[in-house]
Amino acid sequence: MQMFHEIEVRVRYCETDAMGYLHHGNYINFFEMARTELFRVQGGSYRQMEERGYFLVVVKIECHYRVPSRFDDLLTIRAKISRQTPAKLEHEYEVFRDGLLVATGRSLLACVDRQGQVQRITEELLFPPAMPPG
Amino acid sequence: MQMFHEIEVRVRYCETDAMGYLHHGNYINFFEMARTELFRVQGGSYRQMEERGYFLVVVKIECHYRVPSRFDDLLTIRAKISRQTPAKLEHEYEVFRDGLLVATGRSLLACVDRQGQVQRITEELLFPPAMPPG
Amino acid sequence: MQMFHEIEVRVRYCETDAMGYLHHGNYINFFEMARTELFRVQGGSYRQMEERGYFLVVVKIECHYRVPSRFDDLLTIRAKISRQTPAKLEHEYEVFRDGLLVATGRSLLACVDRQGQVQRITEELLFPPAMPPG
Amino acid sequence: MQMFHEIEVRVRYCETDAMGYLHHGNYINFFEMARTELFRVQGGSYRQMEERGYFLVVVKIECHYRVPSRFDDLLTIRAKISRQTPAKLEHEYEVFRDGLLVATGRSLLACVDRQGQVQRITEELLFPPAMPPG
Repeated sequence: MQMFHEIEVRVRYCETDAMGYLHHGNYINFFEMARTELFRVQGGSYRQMEERGYFLVVVKIECHYRVPSRFDDLLTIRAKISRQTPAKLEHEYEVFRDGLLVATGRSLLACVDRQGQVQRITEELLFPPAMPPG
Repeated sequence: MQMFHEIEVRVRYCETDAMGYLHHGNYINFFEMARTELFRVQGGSYRQMEERGYFLVVVKIECHYRVPSRFDDLLTIRAKISRQTPAKLEHEYEVFRDGLLVATGRSLLACVDRQGQVQRITEELLFPPAMPPG
Repeated sequence: MQMFHEIEVRVRYCETDAMGYLHHGNYINFFEMARTELFRVQGGSYRQMEERGYFLVVVKIECHYRVPSRFDDLLTIRAKISRQTPAKLEHEYEVFRDGLLVATGRSLLACVDRQGQVQRITEELLFPPAMPPG
Repeated sequence: MQMFHEIEVRVRYCETDAMGYLHHGNYINFFEMARTELFRVQGGSYRQMEERGYFLVVVKIECHYRVPSRFDDLLTIRAKISRQTPAKLEHEYEVFRDGLLVATGRSLLACVDRQGQVQRITEELLFPPAMPPG
């Protein structure tokens, strides 16, 4: 199974701030997009997971900012799974601009059901076998 | 019933853009906040309305920008109901800074149920009688 | 010169709301992204325009919502210039999902300099001749 | 000097997500608002600081999420300065809803000038003496 994945994100004007930089809060959203796409290339679908009644909630997030980015910059967000236990899923992130590392991050997710009850994170939960035809 | 209401909103840093102004998209959110508070002072609760299974969806929005705003500006958002029919609810908005009109807007809402079916907008739907005790 | 352009945008989780839909305010940002890319394919660069001291400010925006969208939907945003005068630039937008028209919009832009003074919108301003080498 | 401060924030509809919760990225913005207000009650003004050419940039941020929040929840954000050196300013945050701790966070800021050069964080820089009249 593919353990990391990269996406490209172009900084939107609405994501900049009065300093002229990409506002720091938006990296959190880029991390979310990158892990969603990592999940997709692994064969999962977070949308279908929610439709089946399971939700990945963020328990902890952190981000280190090294170099600012600006409007129209094309950023590469690399996401990888750094640890997986029955209770938690940890991702690490690196953000690059033209090969320069501009930020790093980490998130910890737990899985809950519609009632907010914590669920074990199993392969079956993440990648359920396809429904038999008919 | 009170037909208009004003709220104060201080411009957040994350709402500014590289031009140094409040990004124009955020006014749409300020309108939403103002009509939510107008509904509250009228005796309604949009949160409870959703819990009962009714949703107000935006059908049309428009905004005219006259003067830019900046980080830390304290804005007054005035919302009023300009028209109400069984099918639609129209609001008008004015945004002021120190008495200066900086933007105006208008929105048209419809009411739908959980299945997305359009519902008649009645007083009963907006302000249901309180549940009898016990 | 190319008069319209389409971009694809995948709905981010952070852009959804408690109704389960793409929050209506985000369409305004999609319009901005689409007209930025239209400008790029026409040979301009909004980033460079700002670096030269010229800014396109939004004077008016409107959006009609026809059908809601959801997380992970892949939307096509089509932008075209519908009118251009020395003072104003008008764009029209159409948002599609799998060929279905989900929203339309329109914006009116003016050009200002660093002091906020309105500037004539000319071809020279939008597409200045390249700097001679050396 | 006051070392901590609390602000109240009502969760906006546009800040919720399809899970029905306050989207986790927004806490980062709440932290920023709380430290801005802490700075204000201490006698500073971040807006004036930027006008003088000094900027506080976020070097690191982290957030631990304990309990989800929802639309219309009234949250209390408590910010305090947990460490200050000539190079860095560290804040800690606690988010409460009706006395229940729903999230905690921490940020590390550095001060830079317009050219992005790191500046020493001094009392003079944060709270310059008022200009003499005339």
